[in-house]
Order: sequence, then structure tokens, then C-alpha cells
Amino acid sequence: MSDKPAKKPQKLKARRPRGLEDRTAGELAATRAMVETIRAQFERYGFEALETPAIEYTDALGKFLPDQDRPNEGVFSFQDDDEQWLSLRYDLTAPLARYVAENFQNLALPYRSYRQGWVFRNEKPGPGRFRQFMQFDADTVGSASMAADAEMCMLAADTMEALGIERGQYVVKVNNRKVLDGVLESIGLGGDLNAGTRLTVLRAIDKLDRVGIDGVRELLGEGRKDESGDFTKGAGLEKRQIEKVIVFAQLQSGTVTELEDVTNLPKVQREQRGNTLEFRSQESEDATFFVESNKGVVDGLMVHFGSSPISRSGIDELKEIARLAETAGYGRDRIRIDPSVVRGLEYYTGPVYEVELLLETKDEKGRPVRFGSVGGGGRYDGLVSRFRGEPCPATGFSIGVSRLQAALTLIGKLDAKPQAGPVLVTVFGPDNVATSQALVAQLRNAGIRAELYLGNPKHGIGQQLKYADKRHAPCAVIQGPDEKAKGEVIVRDLIAGAAPSDTADRDAHLKKQAEAQRAVSENAMIEEVRNILKRNGIA
Amino acid sequence: MSDKPAKKPQKLKARRPRGLEDRTAGELAATRAMVETIRAQFERYGFEALETPAIEYTDALGKFLPDQDRPNEGVFSFQDDDEQWLSLRYDLTAPLARYVAENFQNLALPYRSYRQGWVFRNEKPGPGRFRQFMQFDADTVGSASMAADAEMCMLAADTMEALGIERGQYVVKVNNRKVLDGVLESIGLGGDLNAGTRLTVLRAIDKLDRVGIDGVRELLGEGRKDESGDFTKGAGLEKRQIEKVIVFAQLQSGTVTELEDVTNLPKVQREQRGNTLEFRSQESEDATFFVESNKGVVDGLMVHFGSSPISRSGIDELKEIARLAETAGYGRDRIRIDPSVVRGLEYYTGPVYEVELLLETKDEKGRPVRFGSVGGGGRYDGLVSRFRGEPCPATGFSIGVSRLQAALTLIGKLDAKPQAGPVLVTVFGPDNVATSQALVAQLRNAGIRAELYLGNPKHGIGQQLKYADKRHAPCAVIQGPDEKAKGEVIVRDLIAGAAPSDTADRDAHLKKQAEAQRAVSENAMIEEVRNILKRNGIA
Repeated sequence: MSDKPAKKPQKLKARRPRGLEDRTAGELAATRAMVETIRAQFERYGFEALETPAIEYTDALGKFLPDQDRPNEGVFSFQDDDEQWLSLRYDLTAPLARYVAENFQNLALPYRSYRQGWVFRNEKPGPGRFRQFMQFDADTVGSASMAADAEMCMLAADTMEALGIERGQYVVKVNNRKVLDGVLESIGLGGDLNAGTRLTVLRAIDKLDRVGIDGVRELLGEGRKDESGDFTKGAGLEKRQIEKVIVFAQLQSGTVTELEDVTNLPKVQREQRGNTLEFRSQESEDATFFVESNKGVVDGLMVHFGSSPISRSGIDELKEIARLAETAGYGRDRIRIDPSVVRGLEYYTGPVYEVELLLETKDEKGRPVRFGSVGGGGRYDGLVSRFRGEPCPATGFSIGVSRLQAALTLIGKLDAKPQAGPVLVTVFGPDNVATSQALVAQLRNAGIRAELYLGNPKHGIGQQLKYADKRHAPCAVIQGPDEKAKGEVIVRDLIAGAAPSDTADRDAHLKKQAEAQRAVSENAMIEEVRNILKRNGIA
Repeated sequence: MSDKPAKKPQKLKARRPRGLEDRTAGELAATRAMVETIRAQFERYGFEALETPAIEYTDALGKFLPDQDRPNEGVFSFQDDDEQWLSLRYDLTAPLARYVAENFQNLALPYRSYRQGWVFRNEKPGPGRFRQFMQFDADTVGSASMAADAEMCMLAADTMEALGIERGQYVVKVNNRKVLDGVLESIGLGGDLNAGTRLTVLRAIDKLDRVGIDGVRELLGEGRKDESGDFTKGAGLEKRQIEKVIVFAQLQSGTVTELEDVTNLPKVQREQRGNTLEFRSQESEDATFFVESNKGVVDGLMVHFGSSPISRSGIDELKEIARLAETAGYGRDRIRIDPSVVRGLEYYTGPVYEVELLLETKDEKGRPVRFGSVGGGGRYDGLVSRFRGEPCPATGFSIGVSRLQAALTLIGKLDAKPQAGPVLVTVFGPDNVATSQALVAQLRNAGIRAELYLGNPKHGIGQQLKYADKRHAPCAVIQGPDEKAKGEVIVRDLIAGAAPSDTADRDAHLKKQAEAQRAVSENAMIEEVRNILKRNGIA
């Protein structure tokens, strides 16, 4: 290798930065359909459209992203001509807070808006992890009512079903930051001094799905080395503290079916008390338990963590959300109180929610994989206040459109079949381009999707039909000098003509091929093309 | 002022960078409608959807923007983690060239795609000049045929009409960079050494609409000082050169009606020869003329500039485009050969086109103002070749969606009336939030756009109805304890209830107010709400 001659200077390389995608017709049609379905749901809930620009002042966005390991905090930033720092938005919530604060006097409060658009994160890209992706958000600003949070969860559930995800294939999990704070307080991690440790603990809990229970244990303790050898420093908790968090995080995370696996662990005991199914950990001093009703979960939280005032306030909020959801007809199969939900963003102050797909798919090694979170949100009472200097409660919900689309595609809920191409009008040499283009104009004027062969007009008919095939053209219109002299065109059904037939019966095959095309008068071209499109199920 | 006490530290200011917009529901609905109309036209022409990311490698985009006065060349740029430079795309053409070069082997050539999205320019913002705006492009890559250029012009014309702009209210002007080069050659500005001067001359011609004929004269000569006192250095041409360019630029720029003004100038003579209307300038050695047919313009160009081979090649291309357009039924009222068209982007190599709205509006001082260009494009045979090291012809057309929307809104072609808001369900104190939210859920499940009053639940009914009014709610549902006890709700028509009536007849007014609301059983709520929506013309 080393004795190769030095390469000559390379021409400019056509390359795309990592974590950024090109997307083609099929994917884009699917996104459009998804976005329209989501929009209809958000509109039905009374939210109104708003759009903010992709670029904001860096300080207006603030720094609330979960990943702080990178120097630029995960945000793309650059300086304006007046040396002020600008950033590409990393979500649709921080810009909304800026918008509301800027237009506060002119808005009808509570201000209920939805927004759709690209967000940008300067993170390490990976499979399914992009640096530009689409979100669709709804937010209610100026309402402290838990009814605002409850309807976000209902909206999330309705939207999943509108997108074709059946009830039971998704769940909206609800927790409350204050309850988590209470749990941490109960193991001596309260107060401002422990804020950093608390964040590390929350992030460890959040990684349960990815790193497993032992991984979380390591992240709560000294730290964890991943498969690539990278070491993540842990929260540095003691064993007693770790086990309390572990039991909490593990026992609240799902359905009874899942929990039955937990009960197989040697140190956990199961006990039925009335309608409450209780799980006790022998390593923990407290019992931690799981039940099937939202009310039961809330009651359990109250028993175990209700002694802390901050935690109690969070539990009361969860109780109210559970009650509102139930009254509106949304049971635990759709909206589930689940204290293991964390949400990465730092600006949440109360209820947090997460939409999880329960559907499984296989990874490249054939192992079952949960899709996990496709959206979420929560209450962020401090975000607008940063600008206003007075309290402004707010809550919102965000769908990860790109991520959800990937999931829907994998499970076959999005129509991914290639769209039919345009009708191709072929060209018979350079002198006939104008008359052929006039035929195309006639087809287009009749509302038919059509194009002229724009490759070299000297190309033979074979090469032109090969292009038609690549373009999925359903039909070709051919006019050579003979046809032109007779005022005719040949209209050819490319789908019937291409369909495989029994090669044993060569005559039948040739007959079928012949039938696939017909010479008609120029005046009858549009009707003939329409017949072929109709025959092949193309509008 | 100077003796004011020092201000206390300010809270974070909610502010938006200049040249970036927030957009609300009405505008967004109009954009969506426009985009769908444009998409339908582009699809009908057989183009297929493509999307590229907002961020590209800076070198892949190249530097082709017209405004080079700023250090960063009008582009937002920042460094990636590996220190490579990234930029926000400034148009949708340069990223397409990168895409085609990267995927060359897998594309059916000619590759015909359309793209829609935001582009970003780090320019000095001004009225109607934004740093983020939307474009909608169609491009054919891999075709050298003038039929590809001709159909771009037809597509532009069809799209304008589909958007409600009538024939005669717009025109697609076509020129050819090579013809311009020929004109410049004829005044001694040929060759590589004069490339910079040629660019300055083109930009001067392009500013005719903005700075007037004397302004162009100054820009072709020593330079020009604008109203703000800023000085723009000129091309430094001699008087003879200047006048030749001036006559050329002025006499080719529009309809005969406009040219009649030109003939009032002392130094221009008008002469009819057969079907050719000719204008002669006494200051110029050559005659320059204008006629009503595209063929006439092309013939005239051939007479005056056909001696230069480069110019002749451009004129032949214009002739072919004119012939193709005419054969397909597009006359000079829609597609007009007009040698004054320049287009700012540097990458054009042959035909260039510009869509101009001929409609006028008034500026803030009541003076008539032409909207001017709302789209354009041209042939860029070198852009894909940068990556490939071999020729790759290409041509494309771009609609400035944001700019066109501003124009359509001003002339009343876009429906700007505010959409009806959701049905509001009021709340009777904190204890009734859950039952009221259940009513909202019922309405939403019936497909009715509805929302709960999410302000303080202790607010009185008057304050809640005031909110409904701000939200343009067509209808309110009210359930107090009395109604609840009877299993009823009050449904109130807020549009009929708010309509003004003859104050002289107080009884009639009160009667009308009373009729606007009705108590119905909970079961009949949906039907009653539907009746009110129907009565007020809301779907």
C-alpha cells in the first residue's frame, strides 16, 4: 500500500455530513401523510398553528439538553454580524417560550399552539440518531391546571391511534419530576448541593432500557464501562441508596406480565392484598409495589414517599391527572402512571409524559427490540418565566416524527410501495422534440402526470423505454414519422406489457405483448392513456 | 439622560434575530395551500419528490451567491467537531448537485426531482428580505436538451395560473447568459481578464428595476451613492460602452406599452418595418429594437449580436426555446424572450428565466409598485461537474414561496380570514374540571374541534366567554351545578349572540340573545353543537 504513487489532486468530493439524511419520494409521501394526520388531531384539540424560525439567539434558547458532555452542549451555534451568538433550535419548546414572552400582551391566555418543524442537535450521530429531525409539538402556556397535562396525554393517545397504532400497541406513561425528587430526598439527596448528583441519578434511571438493571446499578455507583471501552462516571451512591433507587425504577416499569419476570428474581417477594399486587424487595427496607390501576400506583406512592412535601405535591398532581383521564374515558391501557419515566430535558418542573410503542421488531441479529419512546413532554413552569420575571405555568407534548416514521415503516403501518411514475412520451430524433413536447403538454393539460424523454433525442426507443421502466412509468406514448403522417400515436401499457407470462406458450406471450399497445388517432390519445391508467389502478 | 441611575441587571430579553419571522395560523394555512398547489403542478410535470438536509459541507455548496460584499459570502457557517466547515444551504440547487453526484450510479437519468424547504442567507435584512425563506424547486439533471428548459418555463406559467394569477398578470421572461456575454464581448469586455467587470455589469443591469436607468448608468460608470449615503463602486466603463449596454437593457425590458414611454425620450426613434417595431438610439452606433413576437426578438438579437460565436450559440438556444414553447401552445403572453433578464446567481451557464408578476400594488406612500420577480432559474451545466470531473448538463427553476405568498396576500388572492376557533367548554369551579373535560372528550370523539377552559377554574363565566371571543370560538358549552343535576348542558351560539342588533329595540335584542343559547340534555349536546357550527358555515 505504501509504495502507491501519490494520487493526483482529487476533485471536490460529493459527501453529506454524518447524521444528516437525504430522503426520497416514498419516504416524503409517508411523512406528509403522517404530518396531516397529526395536524388533524392537534387541531381537533383546539390548538392553533404557529411557526418560529430555525435560528434563535443562543441565550433565548438556554441550555437544557440532556447531553452536556460536548463542549457546545449539543447545539449548532455561530456568531451574527454584530457578534451576538445564534443557534439552530434544538427543540420546539424553547423557541415557543421566547415567542410567548415576546408577544405576551397580545395572546389569548392560556395560549394553545401547535408547531411542526426541523430541530437540530449537534450530537454524536448513530443508527436512528440524526442531527436534523422533525418534531410536532402542542403546548398550553398560561395554565397551571392538571387538565392541561391530562389532555396532552389524551392527545398523545388519540394521535397514536389515528396513525394506525392500535390500542395496546402503545402506552402514554406519566410521572412527575417532584416525585422523583422526593425519592431522592428520601435517600438523602435533597437540597441544592446534590443537584448534580440528582441529575446523574435521573439519567441513570433513564438508561434502564439501554443498559439493563446492572448497568443502572453501575451508573448509580462508581461508573460504567460500555462495550467500546468508554467509561461513564457514576453518581457515587452507597449500596443502600442504590438498591432503593433500583427497586423503585425496576418495579414500576410496566405491566404485570413484565413484573412477573421480576418476581422470579431471588430477592423479590410478591404479595396480593385486596386489589393491590405488592412486590417486596428483601434488600430494601421499604416495600415497593406495583398494581394494575393508576389509583393503586398513586396510593402506593403516597404510602412510601408521601412524607416529603415536594413528593406529596407531585403525587397529588399524578392523582389529579389519573382522575381526569379516567373521567374522560382513558384507562390504564392508554394513560399509565409510571414512576420510572424520567425524560432527559432539564426544564421540566412537574408532570412528565412519554409515549412508548409496545410493538416489537427484530434487530439485525434477529433479537426482539422494543421501539421505545416516540414522543413525550411535560410541564415547564420556569421556561417562560426566564423572560418575564414572574411565574408563567406551561405544559407541552412533542412527537418525534422522524423516529415515529421509522417505527411505523418497520411494522408496515406506512404505505411504502413506490408511486407510479409519469406517462413517458418518447422522442423520435431531434427534429421531433417540439411535436412530442406538444403531446406532453396535451396530457398535462388534461391533468395527466406526464413527461418528455429528455435524454439525448438520438437515443433509440429501447433505451427510452428502459428509462420509462426505471421511472415506473405506467404507460408510454410513441410517435414516429409513420404515425405522425397518419395523425396517430402508439399508446403502450408498460405494466401489462412487462407482466411475466408462461414462457411455454410463446404465442400467447407475444399476443399479450401486442395487445399491450395500440395505435390510436392523436385525438384519442388522452382517452387511451386514461384507460390504461384506470386499468392499472392509477388515479 | 446621563444622570439616570444605573439600571438594575435586566432579566433575559425575549427577542428574535433580525430577518427571521414568527408566523401564525392564517399565514401558515395559506402557505400549506400554496405548497400543495405548487406540488400538484410539479408532480403533473413528472418531477418526483426529494429532500436534502438544511446543513451541508461548505465546500459542497460552493460560493455562488450574488452578494459577495460580506465576509462570509452571505452564508451561515460553523465548524463541525472534526473542524470541517458546515453551512446552512442558501438555495436548493447546490445541495441537489451534491445529491446527484453522490448517487449518480443509482439514478435514472435524466433525473427529474422537486424539492421544497427553507433556505438561509446571512444578508442584511430589510422589508420583505428575510434571512430564512421557503423555496420550491424543480430540476432536470442529465439533459442538455432545450426542451428541459422550455418545460421549466411552461411549468412556471402553469403554476402561476394554478395559484390564481391570471394570464396577463405574470410573465416568464427568458434570456441566455451567453447572449449577455456576447453583448459584453461586442463592447470589448470578453475574455477571462474581464470576468470581474462582466459580473459588475450584469449586476448593474439586474438593478434596473430598483435604481432606475440613471442608477444603472452610474453603476456602469464610476459608481453610485444611494439614499443612505452608501457608495457602490461601478464597473468603470467608458461612455460609449455604457450607452450600448443602457440601450440594450432598456429597450428589451417589457411590453410595447412600456416601450412607448421609452420612445418619448429625446434620443430614441421608433420605426415600423413589416411586423417588426424597431427603436433606434441616436447615441448608439447599432440600432436596438423590440418587437412583439419571440421570433422577432430572436431575429433582432441575431442581427445585432450574432457575429460572436458565444452569443450566437445563446441565441440559437433562445430560438429553440421559443419554438418549443410556441408548439406546445405557450405564446409571448406567457413565455417571453427578454434579453434584459440577468439572474443573480453565478452558476448559470445558458438559458436563464424569471417569473415576474405584472400586478401592481401601492407602497406606503401610495405610489404604484411592481411586485417583480417571484421565481426564476436557469441552466447550470457546471454545478454537478464540480464533483464528477466530467460534463453533466442540468437546468432548474425555483419559486420563492415566501415572496410569492406576500404578493398573493397583498392582491387578495390568498384567503386571509381568521379560521373559526374551537368550541369552548367552560368550567364551573375546580371541582367540575373532570366532568367538563369529559364533555370536551365527547365532542372531540365526535370529530368536533373543542377545548376546555384551561385558565384558572375559579374564573367567572364572563371571563371565560371573553377568552372564547378572543379565540374566535363559534360556540360555548356551559354546565353549572343546576344543569349537571338535571343532566343538561347549555349550548350557546357565540356568533349569533355577538351579532349587533338594533339597540332601539331592546326587547328584540334580548330575545335574540336568549335565542342564541339553549339548554339541552347531555345526550343532545353533540347534535346541538353541530347545528350551530352548520348554521355558521363551519364544517
